[in-house]
Amino acid sequence: MDDVITLSHGAGGEKMDSLIKDLVLRYFGDYGKDAEVPLKALDDAAVVNGIVFTTDSHTVQPVFFPGGDIGSLSVAGTVNDIAVTGARPIALSAALVIEEGFERNKLDRILQSMQKVAIEAEVPIVTGDTKVVERGGLQDIIINTSAVGIRTDILDENLREARRYRDVSHDWLVDSNLRPGDRIILSGKIAEHGIALLSFREGYKFESEIKSDVAPLNKLMESLLKVGGIVTAKDPTRGGIANTLNEFSEKSNVRIEVFEERIPISNDVKSACDMLGIDPLEIGNEGKVIIGVVREKAEDVLKALRRHPLGRDSEIIGEVKEGKGVIMETLIGGKRRIYKPIGDPIPRIC
Amino acid sequence: MDDVITLSHGAGGEKMDSLIKDLVLRYFGDYGKDAEVPLKALDDAAVVNGIVFTTDSHTVQPVFFPGGDIGSLSVAGTVNDIAVTGARPIALSAALVIEEGFERNKLDRILQSMQKVAIEAEVPIVTGDTKVVERGGLQDIIINTSAVGIRTDILDENLREARRYRDVSHDWLVDSNLRPGDRIILSGKIAEHGIALLSFREGYKFESEIKSDVAPLNKLMESLLKVGGIVTAKDPTRGGIANTLNEFSEKSNVRIEVFEERIPISNDVKSACDMLGIDPLEIGNEGKVIIGVVREKAEDVLKALRRHPLGRDSEIIGEVKEGKGVIMETLIGGKRRIYKPIGDPIPRIC
Repeated sequence: MDDVITLSHGAGGEKMDSLIKDLVLRYFGDYGKDAEVPLKALDDAAVVNGIVFTTDSHTVQPVFFPGGDIGSLSVAGTVNDIAVTGARPIALSAALVIEEGFERNKLDRILQSMQKVAIEAEVPIVTGDTKVVERGGLQDIIINTSAVGIRTDILDENLREARRYRDVSHDWLVDSNLRPGDRIILSGKIAEHGIALLSFREGYKFESEIKSDVAPLNKLMESLLKVGGIVTAKDPTRGGIANTLNEFSEKSNVRIEVFEERIPISNDVKSACDMLGIDPLEIGNEGKVIIGVVREKAEDVLKALRRHPLGRDSEIIGEVKEGKGVIMETLIGGKRRIYKPIGDPIPRIC
Repeated sequence: MDDVITLSHGAGGEKMDSLIKDLVLRYFGDYGKDAEVPLKALDDAAVVNGIVFTTDSHTVQPVFFPGGDIGSLSVAGTVNDIAVTGARPIALSAALVIEEGFERNKLDRILQSMQKVAIEAEVPIVTGDTKVVERGGLQDIIINTSAVGIRTDILDENLREARRYRDVSHDWLVDSNLRPGDRIILSGKIAEHGIALLSFREGYKFESEIKSDVAPLNKLMESLLKVGGIVTAKDPTRGGIANTLNEFSEKSNVRIEVFEERIPISNDVKSACDMLGIDPLEIGNEGKVIIGVVREKAEDVLKALRRHPLGRDSEIIGEVKEGKGVIMETLIGGKRRIYKPIGDPIPRIC
């Protein structure tokens, strides 16, 4: 166990896992464990008294980047953490910590884009907090957004449809809900947020500018729940889809097999990853969701996804088997094990 | 309007008011205004669909101080923001942003004290987030705590009791609920948190060490609501009781008269304030609450308060009149107007 906190502790993946398990769960895990979805589950959101509740602090650098800014990122990211539980987000909080000297017009632009995404997602920001710290106490601005969500009939209907085909033990879309036979759907192209941040920050010039995929997914999720049969969902942010698929596999105690040829990725992002020697599976996404769905409804959910602007490039990327771990059938026909990344290779992407 | 954000923008008081009114309300105020307690009300918490929701980011420096640390401060402060609405807090979130190199044993101590206060308050931490930023990106650690609360019969009973004596238009303990005739009760000695922080930080030596009054007030609030007749409550944090009383006066559109001789303050804190030339009315408190109660129930509420360890030094400090502003009758018999401070004179106390 390290004596000091290092960057990889906050990057998603194995090292953060161990920090969270060692410390956060040791202190917070036991008390409150009777919640419908407790902290212990380490899901995207908790559920207490029927209220879905989540929080995220955003430290992205730089605060403005191609395709978004810290404002749109924070609102969309938190809306998504509620949406992937199957709940409807109904209210957001926004707590700003600002460095003294931060320009007022930048703050203006950030608040504007928070509001724009809040309206797009139809989730109002209802409460907030503002702190200012002296120069050097912080870089630019940190934004925490938390959110609450509620259960809807749409989620109940969706689960009823799934239960026509097999038992689903949990009443929310938790990570542990997958069973052999389920299909895994990815809503679009991977690694865009992380690579957009990295290339912008480092000044890399690729053929065309790679843009972050920041977007609120709650409307999309509701339209998919109406199709029915969805048992789990998660937005593959820090640690990329490698992290999310391993979370699914571990918590559901299943093996997940995915096909490299079906994983959507743009040529630009692929070239960038090749050039930089990084694995796009480990790179964070923002406006993407990985969905687990009972086999019988997979094609219907895929069709609904493709009709939505945020799901146009979606694919059924794999299926759930008996066993353990995440296996990828590669383009050249081999198989490789996909591990949880040690840490997201790109720091401060969210 | 300033072009850059300055420390006083985050210190509570007039300057922060103008930042919030100019920017936050301009962008976030309109959308979501149909909430039971909307952002526009600028109360301690919002109420949406019967769910009480609040957020606070904590940047206190240093992170350990006499009487508490950033962990106890964040949990107690957020529990209190729910409690002063009259609701029962039922769940907390904790989002940590940590500077690379922060010592693990310090993180341990902070999490420990968060959990200690959570258990004391009987409000579990159910969801969280951890980010790590590179050295220099932040000083030590910032903790956001958000919380949700629910309505209880105790609040309904309390309001029913108040309505035996006069009309109370709002169903939560909002700042705008005061009416002429009401009494103002303060639960204990003022300025302890701010002065403890300042004297510890600056190395001032007073006769005895002044300790922060950090404490969760939800159990106390529930015991007072059982007495009944309470129409509003607020914890006088940033900007001190000067700020809170002015908030009450402005939002309720009443005049508040307080008596200096009845405002509880320790000799140590008084000497420290005299020596430093600062007004204890403007200094932030943590484990204190100012309560507005119908006249007929004031003595009963005071008695109940004094039976509780956190209310032993409570006093009825003033009353509500027709008119505007906050007036203090001084020890020497004069009257002075108490204004909203421009900013809390002590930065980073929470």
